[in-house]
Amino acid sequence: MTRKTNPLYISSRNTLQHVLNLYDNFLFDCDGVIWLGEALIPGAAEFIQLLVDNNKGFAFVTNNSSNSRNTYLRKFAKLGIPNITKDLLYPTCYSAALEVRDQLKVPLGSKIWVLGDHGIEEELQEMGYTTLGCNDPKLDHLDLDSCILEVDPDVKAVVVGSTKEFNYMRISSTLQYLLHNDKSIPFIGCNIDRTYPGPHGLTLPAGGSVVNYMAYTADRDFINVGKPSTQFLDIILQDKQFDRDKTLMIGDTLYTDIKSGNDGNLGDGRGSLLVLSGGTKLKDLQKVIDGANGSGEHDLVPSYYIESIGHLAKLIEP
Amino acid sequence: MTRKTNPLYISSRNTLQHVLNLYDNFLFDCDGVIWLGEALIPGAAEFIQLLVDNNKGFAFVTNNSSNSRNTYLRKFAKLGIPNITKDLLYPTCYSAALEVRDQLKVPLGSKIWVLGDHGIEEELQEMGYTTLGCNDPKLDHLDLDSCILEVDPDVKAVVVGSTKEFNYMRISSTLQYLLHNDKSIPFIGCNIDRTYPGPHGLTLPAGGSVVNYMAYTADRDFINVGKPSTQFLDIILQDKQFDRDKTLMIGDTLYTDIKSGNDGNLGDGRGSLLVLSGGTKLKDLQKVIDGANGSGEHDLVPSYYIESIGHLAKLIEP
Repeated sequence: MTRKTNPLYISSRNTLQHVLNLYDNFLFDCDGVIWLGEALIPGAAEFIQLLVDNNKGFAFVTNNSSNSRNTYLRKFAKLGIPNITKDLLYPTCYSAALEVRDQLKVPLGSKIWVLGDHGIEEELQEMGYTTLGCNDPKLDHLDLDSCILEVDPDVKAVVVGSTKEFNYMRISSTLQYLLHNDKSIPFIGCNIDRTYPGPHGLTLPAGGSVVNYMAYTADRDFINVGKPSTQFLDIILQDKQFDRDKTLMIGDTLYTDIKSGNDGNLGDGRGSLLVLSGGTKLKDLQKVIDGANGSGEHDLVPSYYIESIGHLAKLIEP
Repeated sequence: MTRKTNPLYISSRNTLQHVLNLYDNFLFDCDGVIWLGEALIPGAAEFIQLLVDNNKGFAFVTNNSSNSRNTYLRKFAKLGIPNITKDLLYPTCYSAALEVRDQLKVPLGSKIWVLGDHGIEEELQEMGYTTLGCNDPKLDHLDLDSCILEVDPDVKAVVVGSTKEFNYMRISSTLQYLLHNDKSIPFIGCNIDRTYPGPHGLTLPAGGSVVNYMAYTADRDFINVGKPSTQFLDIILQDKQFDRDKTLMIGDTLYTDIKSGNDGNLGDGRGSLLVLSGGTKLKDLQKVIDGANGSGEHDLVPSYYIESIGHLAKLIEP
């Protein structure tokens, strides 16, 4: 392993130019990188424009499974980021649908059981599947005599992601599918994220907590179609025809974004850039560097870091 | 480790008499051992009477945290089991309260945050604590602006157990306490049970799934006051003044009851009896024996087994 333990701080126009020369493609996490909640991160639009001007490839890869690509497209437009088309967007509700179709080869038209928000339902339906579960009002109230707890034998996969409509009926009905037929129905989890930063400074439960809940309860593993799963990365690199050696992952979370770029061996082993505009602060980065120097495990240490992608845009200003 | 890998099937009156001579005290799991749901297991009352007639000590230790000792007392009476007093009952809602008072030394009168059913609330209140959370109707509906998400600085412990009133507000509010002040508020989990057998042949999520959900989301460990935690056993042995070497654990679940008897070194290393009247069938036992012979790990292999405690009572009939 030749990866350097100390990440490079991109401090000058020259360093940035060097980085831009090394990579043809840029994968962006969204929340904490492009925006924070509903607010655009200053300079983010300018940096994306810079990539367009330099004929770079890019895509947006978010572990969020609640919103479909169509919803994200509206958000990019609303925040005034130009040049964004649907084919650049990879929320995990979409990667889950890609997994169902392309990896699991589930025939179009099949039924898929969903525990999660509408984004999953939308992407599966757009791809040609029928969805069950999700926000079905039959699941709003506890009724253990309800026929919705009977397994529909035509269900060919279960997709689990973030939802605030989490209740005992949704969990129990999903569990029936995960246990059915010796646990043979494929189980896809949209991410392993424990929490996300909510309003009023609250730290709130994220999608991975729901996925992990179901995995623990059913006592089985799941296919992770979110970061840091290298499967997720493989799907996108193939779909976008991005050269692995020439691709950089940019994100604000060490154990998903940075680990994914490192584990996926992007950029010839130097393919991860941490921005400090989201959930990770400089002291968190330092802790991970210290840990890596002690343990020799460098999977969470980014290749580069910078305050935000707006700072990158600023470095290049004439 | 001298524990025999092959458990002894109690097949004759002589074998049973030998077992009864070896042990002074008997710890019973309840569901699957004494009753199944609302139905008494045939012969269970007779076996308990046999223990009474022979001046044996006994207690009931259940991982269920939903029902208080008072509720259990009514259930024993309703099922016609004589000689049961409150001091013989150890549901984990009670062991959680004992942990708070005797191990954590939380001053009486303090506030305790609860995610779980009323049993936890009842036992804590009976012991002299004030409870928050639990089934507070403010937590019934999603409202991330609600002041109930603000941490009450007087809360001194968090207790989590089984609940069907599981929703995003209850999870989110509990998470605030688990993360508060560098995760320093003690976190007690009532058990690690994944599922339990529900009505209509359904397998339903159990308390451990809620505990594990919170542990994963908050990214921290918990104090397990249920089986197979030896802490749970220690509390009861001390409280009842039972001699560890002379105590037998009787249960229907390998990874809680049997493991607890074995890990706790009850009966001088031969202190666990499996009954097949609950969730574990003979083929499950065989699988565990085969696994133990391969791996050398015997913690799930019982010392003895029998169809039910009713069968034990029958062996001794004149």
